[in-house]
Parts: sequence; C-alpha cells; structure tokens
Amino acid sequence: MDKIFKNSKLVPYYYLGRGAFANLGMLLNAKRKTQGDFVVVVIDHYFSGKHILPEGSIHADDLVIYADTSEEPKTTYIDALTDQVKTKNRMPVAIVGIGGGSTLDVAKAISVMLTNPGKAEQYQGWDLVKHAPVYKIGVPTIAGTGAEFTRTAVLTGKDKKLGINSDYSVFDQVILDADLLETVPKEQFIYTAMDCFVHNCESLLGRINDTMTIALAEKSTQMMKEIFLGEMDLEKLLVASSLGGLAVANSSVGICHPLSYGLSIELGLHHGFAICVAFNQLEEYYPEVATFKKILEKYEIHLPKVVSDDIAEEQLERMAVATMLNEKPLSNAFGDDWENIFTKEKIKSLLRKM
Amino acid sequence: MDKIFKNSKLVPYYYLGRGAFANLGMLLNAKRKTQGDFVVVVIDHYFSGKHILPEGSIHADDLVIYADTSEEPKTTYIDALTDQVKTKNRMPVAIVGIGGGSTLDVAKAISVMLTNPGKAEQYQGWDLVKHAPVYKIGVPTIAGTGAEFTRTAVLTGKDKKLGINSDYSVFDQVILDADLLETVPKEQFIYTAMDCFVHNCESLLGRINDTMTIALAEKSTQMMKEIFLGEMDLEKLLVASSLGGLAVANSSVGICHPLSYGLSIELGLHHGFAICVAFNQLEEYYPEVATFKKILEKYEIHLPKVVSDDIAEEQLERMAVATMLNEKPLSNAFGDDWENIFTKEKIKSLLRKM
Repeated sequence: MDKIFKNSKLVPYYYLGRGAFANLGMLLNAKRKTQGDFVVVVIDHYFSGKHILPEGSIHADDLVIYADTSEEPKTTYIDALTDQVKTKNRMPVAIVGIGGGSTLDVAKAISVMLTNPGKAEQYQGWDLVKHAPVYKIGVPTIAGTGAEFTRTAVLTGKDKKLGINSDYSVFDQVILDADLLETVPKEQFIYTAMDCFVHNCESLLGRINDTMTIALAEKSTQMMKEIFLGEMDLEKLLVASSLGGLAVANSSVGICHPLSYGLSIELGLHHGFAICVAFNQLEEYYPEVATFKKILEKYEIHLPKVVSDDIAEEQLERMAVATMLNEKPLSNAFGDDWENIFTKEKIKSLLRKM
Repeated sequence: MDKIFKNSKLVPYYYLGRGAFANLGMLLNAKRKTQGDFVVVVIDHYFSGKHILPEGSIHADDLVIYADTSEEPKTTYIDALTDQVKTKNRMPVAIVGIGGGSTLDVAKAISVMLTNPGKAEQYQGWDLVKHAPVYKIGVPTIAGTGAEFTRTAVLTGKDKKLGINSDYSVFDQVILDADLLETVPKEQFIYTAMDCFVHNCESLLGRINDTMTIALAEKSTQMMKEIFLGEMDLEKLLVASSLGGLAVANSSVGICHPLSYGLSIELGLHHGFAICVAFNQLEEYYPEVATFKKILEKYEIHLPKVVSDDIAEEQLERMAVATMLNEKPLSNAFGDDWENIFTKEKIKSLLRKM
C-alpha cells in the first residue's frame, strides 16, 4: 500500500441552537463522579464580570481562568496555565473553552499538556502528542476560526507560530449557540468570519484535498456569501464556520496563512485581522479576493496599511523567514518546488504592500 | 430551559479514498490485544467467494457471517446472529459491516444486542439502548442509504419496520472506498442512490430541522444532481451519501419513507426500490420528483407498478396501517395534526397508484 490515507477525526458530539449553552452544567455534572472532582473553565477575559456562564454550571471548587487574548497564545502562556491547574494536585474531569479561536486553542493545548510531559513548544507540529488528553468542551463565542472543529491549537513559540496538530487536540463536545455571538464588535466579527472565508479558498485551491473537503469548503463559502452579501444569520454563520473548520482540518491552508503568521509574529497583529490584511493583497492567487473586497465595502471596513513604507530590511527579512517556515501550507499552494516559485523576494514584495 | 436540544453524535473517525479499505487489517490489529481476541465480519452474501477482504485482515479465529440481504433484516435474524456470536463464549473485539444498508444495519444491531439483554424488537424505537455496544466499523459497498453515518439500524419486526435509533448504533469508524462500488448492478445502484436523494428532500421540507441539517442536505442534493445529471463520480457519490446521512440523522424522513415501509412490509420489496416506487407518485408534495424522473429517464430505469389494480382491500388496509405507524416522519411532514391531513383514504389512494 503506497498511498497514505488519513483517518479523519470528527468532533463526536455537538449541540446546535440558540440557548444550547444552557446544557453546559448537565454535561459537566455527567463528568463529576467523586468528591473533589473539578472542572477548568478557560474563558476569554472579554467576558470577565459579564456572568455568561449558565447558572449552576460552575461549582466552588472549579478553576475559572480568564484567558488574556490581547495577544495570540504563546507556548509559555500554556505552560504557565498548565502549571496553575497542576497546583490543584489532581486532574480536572473536564476543560471548557469559551471564547474565540485563541481561547479555544488555549483550552485545547492545556488539555493536552496536562497529560503529556515537557513544554508546549515540544508539541508544535504534527502528531507529536502521545497520551490521551483531558475531556474537553468547546464553546465558540465568535464564528470563523473553525477552532471548534479542527485538530490544531495554534501557538506562538519563540520563533514560530505553529499549531499542536493532533487528534488529541479535537474537542470531545462542542456547543454552537448563536446567542453568544450577539455582542461581538463589528470589526472583530468580520475579521474572524473572513478567516473562515479565506481558509475555504486556501483549501479549495490547494493540492492537499479530498472530495469531502471540497464539498464542505464549497458549501461553507456559498453560505458565507449568502450571509455577508445577503442576509446576516448568526446561526448560519456558526454552521458555515463549522463546515469550514471540518474542511481545513482535512486539507491545509495555503498562501495567506503563512503571510499572516509573518505579520502576526513580528507586528503582534491578531490572527483574523492579519488574515484580512494579507488576503487583501492576494488577488493574483485567489479570485475570491474580489468577493472579500465587496464584503469589506458592504460592512464599511477600511483595512489600514500595517507594514510601514520605511520598514527596516531586517524586520522584513524576519517576516519573510517566519512566512517561509510554513512549508506544508506553501507546498499545498505551490507544490514541493514552492521555494522556487514563491521566492523570498516575492514574499517581501507582497509584505511591503500590506 | 423549555427548549429541547439534541446532542448530535458524529462518526468519530473516517477514511476516504480509493484503496482506503486496505486499512481494515491495521484497524482490527489495534483492537486485538490478547490471545483469543476475535472479530465478527458481517458481509453481504453478494460478496461470498469474491475475496474482497484485504489480505491478512481476517484471522482464523474470526467469525465471518455472510448476511442474507435478499430480504430486509428482521429482528429475529438479528437475534439468531447474536446467538451465533455468543457461542464463541467471549465478546468480539470488533464488528465489521461490509455491504449495503441492510448489511450495515445488521452489523450495527448485533453490536448493540451483544451487550444488551433481551430481543432486538425490544429496542426498536428511540434511545432504548442502555449499554455501550461492541466497537464497530462500517464499510459501505453501495452509496445512498446513509447507514454509514446514521444512528439507526432499520429492522423489520412482526408488525413494524422501525429502527434501533440510538447513539450506540453509530459506527466508531467508517471507511469510504469508491473502489468497492464498481460492481454494483445499475438498477440497485440507482435505487440506492435515490434513497439519499429522497431523504434529503424529506429533511429539507420537514419541520424537524436545523441549520446544519439544511446545509448538509442542500449540499448533498446539489452533488447528487451534478453526479446524476452531469458526470458520474463514485467517490463524490459516497460523500454526497455521507452528507445526506448526517443530515437525516439530525432531522427525519417525511412522507415517502412511511409509504415505502408499507410497501416493503407487505410486498417484501427492497428498501431502495420501494422508495423509488413511492417517491415517483409524490410530486404534489416534493417538487424534486421532477428531477428524480429526469434521472430515471437518463439511466433508462422503468419503474414497474407493484400494487396490483385488483389488490384486496385487506392488504391495502394493512399497508396503510403500516404506513401510519410512522408517526414521527409523518408529523415531521405535516405537523402534529398529520392524521387529519394525510388520511388513511389519501394514503390508500397514493398506494393504489404505486
């Protein structure tokens, strides 16, 4: 057997519907078996003081962590939070991530790091996790990252932004409740939704692909267009994001994500925003950039230029190098010979426009 | 919390690709831990003597059952096969179903009945299974039933055709390999594919529905049209069937399936064929019957009339009663008041045309 087949992992359970978040307590109670059993809740610091947790779902012994998502999650942050959980001297029976892609990725990474030795940076890559993680529930409060359905927890290390890609990163349970999306500020809402639109384009035009991926990415893209050029529907957006997440989980991102990582790591930009800034300059590769521009126009989003015209050559070099570290997405887009096609000079010229 | 939310179960792992069936041995070896561990393979009798099992995947101790699918699986057949497995005096470490919807349903039902007391007919209904089943793998050799992704194992009892509907009926692993579809005879191929086309229509026009179901059923239908009115693509058909299975698992069938059950139980018709005969007369309810007729025409399928013009009133009565036993699908189609809308007289008049 020469052909390599991937055993694709799906989230085994999901709730869908406005109000479905109310089931959290029931799900957690099913895991609380003996005295001292506790739950770790990782929730975006944006919700601090906002009392969004369903009444009675969290007990006195539980550990609620308000995740600082002002920056993308760093591997050192995961290590610190994992150590904090370990001070309880027993394993939690569940970890709940409530928030955007960063918060969900933090929850995923902690669930893995609690049962695997060493530091988070050792697990950045593909299928490096050896031991089964703590049971985890994902509750997205913004749509578009796909983090609720993917097998990656994207982390920023010392010199690379790279996910912990593992079946063990996949949530055991997801709750899709559009009520939680109601308060997201417009800019963040659009940037994040466009993350999904972009990774659909990258999946569809990449080499790493299969019939399922194509079907899901096509449907997700169609729904995105209906939502953003037609009528807004938050639940439909959550579903479109889920389908996009499922699609990209079995394919790969392409040209835009590596460039956005270069921007993010050097300029500290948030993922969704960096994705939009990068995608906006990629019309020569992705025809759907035209649709993307229409959406930005409709929602009156004006993307600023983030790379200064007089950027230092050393900084540009670092951004290009960070981009080129993403070999898998770039070979997905260009083939094994990608370095000869998507040269450092080409990357720099694109970055200068961003 | 007044609203009822369903925790939707997905198949946690699937392989997709021509040749992927070769992974069967590896999957089973991962389950064989101690001496005496054995596997039950339920395979459609159509494959008897055809040597389709990947080399080395089945060991001498394994139990290979060639399932008789000349009739729809009966609850008594499940009980007999379960007893046969039990003569091995230990639980199998895995059950593999290889075949069409009937064979997959037999494998699902045995996996449940091995760990739950009593007879299969006691579990026909919704969420009646109490104990976790034996690990199971589903390998469809025909596309359209959706059985590989649904939570039902449809069985014919003494007086009703009704599934064991349970999260415990869901396969733990599915292998989607279009190579296995190459030898299906044309009529059976079309009838089965149309089963998916029909349950998509029933899902989309029913009341039990959600945003995910709609998205998946829409995409499945679109793919079906591309495949059957455009270019045949067996792998795409397998994916369309999977998406349709996922959709109907979270919604319900509608008018056509109950009528087909009435036909099947009284006339012994195979499911896919009965579905086609019934759907062909339902244009007043489903506009897509027009598309269906176009597909039959393109593939030169001539549906015979199966209900005799001089059918005995008692037999027609039994068919109508069997149809009306399916309250959930009929209330999905017509609402709680379905009996006043879809009367026995109306049902009989439709059956007479079939």
